[in-house]
Parts: sequence; structure tokens; C-alpha cells
Amino acid sequence: MTTPLALDGTVVEMYDTTLRDGAQQEGMNLTVADKMAIAPMLDALGVGVIEGGWPGAIPKDTEFFRLAAKELDFASAQLAAFGSTRKAGTSAHQDTQVRALLDSEAPVITLVAKSDIRHVERALRTTPEENLAMIADSVRYLVGEGRRVILDAEHFFDGYVFDPSYAMRAVATAFEAGASDVVLCDTNGGMLPDWVHRIVTEVRAATDGRLGIHAHNDSGCAVANSVAAVAAGARHVQGTVNGYGERTGNADLLAVAANLELKLGARCLPEGKLADATHTAHAISEVTNIPPYTRQPYVGSSAFAHKAGLHASAIRVDPDLYQHIDPTLVGNDMRMLVSDMAGRASIELKGRELGFDLAGRPEILGRVVDRVKESEAQGYTYDAADASFALMLHEEVGGERPRYFQMESWRASVHFTEAIGGDGECEATVKLRAGGSRVVRTGEGNGPVNALDHALREALVGVYPEIEQFELTDFRVRLLDTSHGTDAVTRVLIQTSSGAETWSTVGVGPNILEAAYEALVDSLVYGLLQAGVDPR
Amino acid sequence: MTTPLALDGTVVEMYDTTLRDGAQQEGMNLTVADKMAIAPMLDALGVGVIEGGWPGAIPKDTEFFRLAAKELDFASAQLAAFGSTRKAGTSAHQDTQVRALLDSEAPVITLVAKSDIRHVERALRTTPEENLAMIADSVRYLVGEGRRVILDAEHFFDGYVFDPSYAMRAVATAFEAGASDVVLCDTNGGMLPDWVHRIVTEVRAATDGRLGIHAHNDSGCAVANSVAAVAAGARHVQGTVNGYGERTGNADLLAVAANLELKLGARCLPEGKLADATHTAHAISEVTNIPPYTRQPYVGSSAFAHKAGLHASAIRVDPDLYQHIDPTLVGNDMRMLVSDMAGRASIELKGRELGFDLAGRPEILGRVVDRVKESEAQGYTYDAADASFALMLHEEVGGERPRYFQMESWRASVHFTEAIGGDGECEATVKLRAGGSRVVRTGEGNGPVNALDHALREALVGVYPEIEQFELTDFRVRLLDTSHGTDAVTRVLIQTSSGAETWSTVGVGPNILEAAYEALVDSLVYGLLQAGVDPR
Repeated sequence: MTTPLALDGTVVEMYDTTLRDGAQQEGMNLTVADKMAIAPMLDALGVGVIEGGWPGAIPKDTEFFRLAAKELDFASAQLAAFGSTRKAGTSAHQDTQVRALLDSEAPVITLVAKSDIRHVERALRTTPEENLAMIADSVRYLVGEGRRVILDAEHFFDGYVFDPSYAMRAVATAFEAGASDVVLCDTNGGMLPDWVHRIVTEVRAATDGRLGIHAHNDSGCAVANSVAAVAAGARHVQGTVNGYGERTGNADLLAVAANLELKLGARCLPEGKLADATHTAHAISEVTNIPPYTRQPYVGSSAFAHKAGLHASAIRVDPDLYQHIDPTLVGNDMRMLVSDMAGRASIELKGRELGFDLAGRPEILGRVVDRVKESEAQGYTYDAADASFALMLHEEVGGERPRYFQMESWRASVHFTEAIGGDGECEATVKLRAGGSRVVRTGEGNGPVNALDHALREALVGVYPEIEQFELTDFRVRLLDTSHGTDAVTRVLIQTSSGAETWSTVGVGPNILEAAYEALVDSLVYGLLQAGVDPR
Repeated sequence: MTTPLALDGTVVEMYDTTLRDGAQQEGMNLTVADKMAIAPMLDALGVGVIEGGWPGAIPKDTEFFRLAAKELDFASAQLAAFGSTRKAGTSAHQDTQVRALLDSEAPVITLVAKSDIRHVERALRTTPEENLAMIADSVRYLVGEGRRVILDAEHFFDGYVFDPSYAMRAVATAFEAGASDVVLCDTNGGMLPDWVHRIVTEVRAATDGRLGIHAHNDSGCAVANSVAAVAAGARHVQGTVNGYGERTGNADLLAVAANLELKLGARCLPEGKLADATHTAHAISEVTNIPPYTRQPYVGSSAFAHKAGLHASAIRVDPDLYQHIDPTLVGNDMRMLVSDMAGRASIELKGRELGFDLAGRPEILGRVVDRVKESEAQGYTYDAADASFALMLHEEVGGERPRYFQMESWRASVHFTEAIGGDGECEATVKLRAGGSRVVRTGEGNGPVNALDHALREALVGVYPEIEQFELTDFRVRLLDTSHGTDAVTRVLIQTSSGAETWSTVGVGPNILEAAYEALVDSLVYGLLQAGVDPR
């Protein structure tokens, strides 16, 4: 759309709090290893600050900062430790919680403080003046120790509506004490964009310091509220990837960045990095193990998917008439849901990534595109199953996949004795030929899939001792409705690791066991192939 | 929050397009029966207009309108048929598609028309004047036939930015021809609230007719854009329940209504009906079979869930400090994720619904609350499993659940012959005592759960012929991470129908079979209990 670029060239700092506020989401439970995996992805995307957690208050977070100081070397991001101002009636340098923030070695410290007088009196149970002193002391002390200090003014908007003068005193106090930014928080998430714009405008008029916005999505307006705050003069935005967070979540940082850059001309991420948004959002959801939301603005798998009806030909000729932005700007693709038009280029690219050059081989490329299309209609997905996709390419390029074994039959079962309070007994038996002989093995497990995995390995490890190294590290099941009808199919994604390498495979079937079997076999075949093992 | 109620008492019409635009969502496939089930729920909620589909263009929709005219009797909603203006170069009364709209017998007809000159020329491939004639003729003809006609001005905002005068001519033409409303559509969903507010304000200044807003969520601002349009003078909002829709979805109609009513003082639904929002949103998601989005504003299961940390006691004493609205206003509940504080009241209410008066029995109520809490921590959910909950109440009130049979053991298995291209053979065997004898039966199915269901019925139907009437009508599986660790558990929800009645049960276990077994047994026990059958 042709519009005035209201923020042309304005730099807005992106502050990611996926690892702290995002981790408050119901059902999310990030380990230290998860945080160590996500932080470099955020740095690679180019966010300005990565908030890692609350050292001193949460033992896992203390450990994360310890490891991060030793092992993480960011290209451009600054690491921030979150914590609160000193307790009432102490001094900042004696406060153990403030001490823990310093000890984290994070170059940025984000202090949360009360700015709503009601919270000061009813939750904090201290005096308005002591709260301001807590802000002043804590900021000054940490700035004096050489840290950049950001103040998160909790419940700012509600507080401002109730008592603007006290809320403003909290802001002024923080700036006077040396805070680099004061972040106005819509902690309860109930604001509307118009209100945010009006209040930020008033605060801007009363202070010279740099303002930030921290929005939650309780009224469904977190993205709009963040954009409204920037339009009114805020230059720092806090949010999370995929909008993770407590209750309805935080502002989706990537949607905010995309709106600010593509629609208003601001600069949020380094040049070209917005094109990594889709990949980063999906990669992080693999770590959090929260399925990506298909309808998520900009990065969702459906975000640029069109049901090809009457307008299919018009969309093909003139896609810009039917999409608000070019999806490649955020690393996404237009998809026609009936016949995929965008597949060829991305499959060629993916093939190259996996070591297959399909550029000069249009026939093979065409066959692979057809197979992907057909498989995806059946419920397969290759986004998170590189190894199954590589095996498919291997077949199309090399003619056949290596046959490490010939399955004769398998059986998996659950046997449950005593209806109430009993324990299920799960076992599986495979009968196959490998290394010139027939092998029959039975495995046990806590579920039938687990038992089948054990039986397969037992049967093959004698002939292929390399399998000993393979470990099943993740297992996910989804029940899908295929697009072509109402019959549900089951999809299983498996992740396997050999220590040195990790790979993912997919299986689809009428039930969980047949789907899992397919993914397990792909996993073993790919592992052996990568290890350079010939069929025996 | 204390704010000026900018729209105090202003009436805004809620136009629901879940059944038409919502059904465009990727993966959604509504049957005629689904639409017949959803429409009365929308009427009960009190929306003003229910758009049912596109009769004449989609055979399923033609059938829906035929059935709706015969069988649906709305308390207050009007039914709308969606279609397009006449084709270029014909007359409205000769156009078969326009004819089909009349034949639908819907009292409201919503015509989609081009208002972006580029779409007229490049997609419709007709002249600007002919497009206006198509609007005028079609509206006038249908109004003359006694219908209320709403004009959806497709791509209005993009069109207005590109060529405001043509976009305005389309609006004026529709009003002159007798349209009751012209709905400004952000078809590509890329608008920001500030732009919507500015453009609607300009359009308002140029016309006296009633304006509506139809927003999509591509920039993450559909709710905010809808609210901005109403603030600028629109008095009709189109949207869908749960924000269903193509790409990133339509505006979430219930979030818009909640914002307009609770934050701006407008009147969208009949008095008190907003409190049905959560229930309606969840009930509709049961029909669409798209899992509810836990973080959905207002109605999501996490929308008022607090991780009880430092502030737990403050939240309990003073909940209004920590939530943007009282959750009961939208039929939702505050939840403390560690210890559920709100459970008692809602369980008492639910008990009453199921015929158990727990008000005077605090001890039983306390035990049930404890069991629910414990069970939910293990992965159970009773929102969608009334029958399992009723059995739990039955046990707590009556002491024990009826024992229709004693399970000795069961076994379910999948047997797969020939690895590639083969078909799995699923069977299950149950051994139990019922009616004084031991019964052993084997069932087959397309999956092990299906086989287990068949075996159970086979074994029991001789003693309890009532089971013959029970039909398993829905079966859903989810893999859950429990809140207390990383071990995934499997949850199975089963819906059973006896023709006259439908009930839902839940089972949780370490694998799909053990979970399904529990839900199947609950389903049979509840069915027999409801039928007044004594254990034999």
C-alpha cells in the first residue's frame, strides 16, 4: 500500500523477553539448555537486547547467566538480567537480589518498579516516597557499577489513568538516577491503541528520556498498542517471539517489527534480517515445543495461504492485489492451497541446503515438487523433517533408497491387566531380514511406540552396530484432519541424535503405530546413510 | 480502569461471518450439519446478523439455506446470504447467481463489490462505470424484492488510499440504490488502526449512510482496527467467532464486542449476553474441531490465568489490580495456576447444571475441588467431558460408581505385514465378567482404539443390550505436557450418542490406548447410568 512512511528511518530498539516474560506462559517450561539454544537464534535475528531471566530469584536463571557469560558470544545483542528494585527499608548495595543482578555479569539490567500508586500501597505496602527512593537508589547503584539500566514501569498505564502525577514522578526519578530507558508497561494488557497513543504523547511532552513500551495482549491489541506507542514517540519495544507470555501473551515482537519496518519505515532489525522472521519463529517453537500458530500474522504457515477459488488466476498474475506485503520480506511464502505455486523455488533451495543440486535438473525437481505436494496433502510435513525430505531427494536423484533390511512383519501391543489401577504392559515384536539372516526380536516400553523402537534396534544392532549411537531424543504426535476430507490421520515427528548430529523424520498413518513405524525406519535409514554404512 | 466511556450507549450491530468467511480457514471444512449446529449458538449469543454462506456458488451452502428456512427459528438474529453483484453486461434479475440469493429466502443479502479501481480493471476486467452499474442494479433489484441489502466494499481501504474518489463513488452508489449499510473491508488485512480511523472519519464526513467494518488480521491489528472504525463512526462490525478465517483470520468478533462494551460503553449484544462469550467460543470450537487457542483474548483458557509467584496473596486480596476486566463479564474465570482459587464456585455451578446440589455440602464440594485440581494437573479436562465429571460427582455424592462389569484384562495390538505398502491389522481382546459370567471377545478396527471399542461392546452387549444404541461419534487425541514436568501424557476425549442424548468423556494415560480405554469405559458407564440400567 502506498502510505506516508511516518517513521522513515527512525531507529527503534527491539528488546526480546521470550526467555523471561515469554517463559511465564502456561504450559511452557524452558530448561537452561532451551534458553542456551534460543538466545543465539535471537542474536542471529538481530534484536538489540535479549532478556535472559531473573538471576537470584529463579535458580535456573542464575545458572543460565553463569553459562551465558562463559559460552555465549553474541554478534550484536546485549544480554539483560531482569530483577526488581531494592526492598523497602534497605540500601541497594546490601540487597541480595540486586547483588545477584550484578553477579549475573549481564551488561544490561532491567529493573521492574511500581508506578501505580495503588500497587505501591496495596501490593508493595510501602509509602509513595519510599517506592521512589527504591527506584532512585537501585538505578543509581547499578549505573555506578557500569551497567546500562532500563526501568520497567509496571502497571504504568493503569497507574497513569488513576494518578498521572505519581506515575510521572516514577518515570522522572528513574531518568534522574541514570536509567537509559523507562519502559511504560501495560502489565494487565487492557489498553486500547488510542489510549496508549494519548498517554505516551503526554509522557513524551513531560520528559526528555527515551521511552519504551511493554504490552500484553489481553484486549487483543498488543501489537497495535506497541505500534501506537512508537508512533507517539517510544523508541524501545519489549515483546516476545510468537507472542509467548502469561495469560494472552506479550506483544509479538516480530509482528511489531514487521509493521514498524514495512508499513511505517522504521528500522528495527539490521538490514535484511526481517527475512529471517519466519524461520526464527518456527525454530524457536521447536525448542519451546509449543506448536506454531498457523494463523500468526506474518510468520504463520497460513499467513499468506489463499484458498484458490474464483480469483486464482488473478492472484497468480497480480499477487500484490491480494497480499498486504510481499511475504518474502518476512521469509514466508504465498501458498495457493489447491495447487502450490511457490514450491519449486523453495524446494530447489532446500535441496541445495541438503547437498542436492536440482537447478539443472528440472525433471527431477518437478517430480519432487509433485511428491511433496501429494505427501503434504496426506499430512506429511517436511519443515521439521529434513531427514525424511533428504531420503526423498535421495530416491529421486539416486533411484532408490538403500535397503538396510527387509521387514517381514511387526506387531505392537498393549496388555492391560486389572481395569482400575493396573499398569499397561507394552511390547512389540519385529520379524525382519538383515545381514543375510532372519531376525526376530521383542522390545518393551512405556508405550507401544517406545516398545517398537526398542524391538527394531534390538533386531538391527547385531548387523549394524552403528545404531548403538542413535538415540531417540524427541517424539511428537499430532492428529490431523487432512485437507481433502474429514478422516483424521496421525502424524509422528521423531528426532534422533548420534551425538555428533541430530536429524528429524516424519511418518503418517491411519493410527499412531503405523505413523511411528514409518518415522522410526526413516530415522534409522538416514542415520546409517549419513554414517556411510552400506547395506549388509 | 477508569476511562471516559467514549461510546456510551451507542448501538453497534454485530455481524457474524463464521459460517462464510470463517469457513475459508485452512483446514476447516464445515458440513451442513456443522452449520446447522453453529447458527443457533450464534443466535443464542445475540449477534444481529448470521451470514450463512454463498448459496448458488457453493452447493453445501445452498443446502444450508434450504434447511435453515425450514428448520431454524432464530430468537433475534437475521440470516444473511452472501453473494456478489451481477455479472458485467447482464441485468440483475437475469443473473443466476443473484437469483440464487433471492431463492435462499434469507432476509438479508450481503453483496460483495469492488471499490478498488485496480481490482475493477485488473481482476474483474470491466470498466469503472460498469462496476458502479453492477452495484446499483444489484442492490436496487434485491431491495425491490423486499430484502435488506448490505454492501461489502471489498479492498476498500487499499482502494481508498490509491484512488479515494472512485472508492467513495462505490460507497455512494450503494447507498443511493438502497443499501442499509456499506461495509468498508480491509480485505488484505494490512491496515493499522490509525489509518482505519483516519479513513473512516473521512468517509463518514462524505456520506450519511451507516458504515460497517470488516477487518482481517494480517498485520495483527484486526481487533484494534475494528474498534478504531467504530470510534470513527462505523456502527456495524463483521467478524468471526475465535477469529476464524482465511490466512491470519478475520477480526475476532467476541474480542471486538468485549472491547466495545466493557472499555468504551457501546452496546453490541443484548444485556448480559457477553457473559456467554467464553462458553460460545468453546462450544463452536467443538463443532469446528479446531482446538481452542488457549491465549485467545477474553475467552482463552489462559486469558485470566496467573502464575502465582510473589504476588499471589496480593492477587487474591485485590484481583482488580491484576486483571484488565472482571473475567466473569465474559464468562471466563481467574485461575491461579499453582492453586486454583476460583474452582469452588464454578464447580458448584457445574454440579447444579448436572443435577447435584452441592451448595449445602461444603465437604463434598471441597473433595470434588481437590479431585478436579489433582486430575487437571495430571492432564484431565472437564470442560469438554461433562459425563466424566458427572461420574466423579456421582462417586463423591453416592459413594461409588455402579460396576456394570469387572475387567480382567485387555490387549490391543497392531500387526503389520510387509513393510512397504502393507496394511496394518488392528485387533483387541477383552476379558471381563458381566451378568455373572466371564466373557472373552475380540474386535477389529482401522486403529487399535477402534478395535478396543468394538471388543468392549461385543463383550457387553449380550448383558446390556442398551449399548446397541450407543454410537461413538467423535474421538480426539492430544499429547500434553503436564505442568509438573516434561513427561508427555496422552489425553483422549470421546463423544458418544444414544440418538436422544450425546455425552463426552475423558481419559488420560501414558499412551493412547490406556487413555482411550478409560474414556471408553466412562462413556459406557455414563450411558447405562443415564438409561437407568442397574448392574446385572
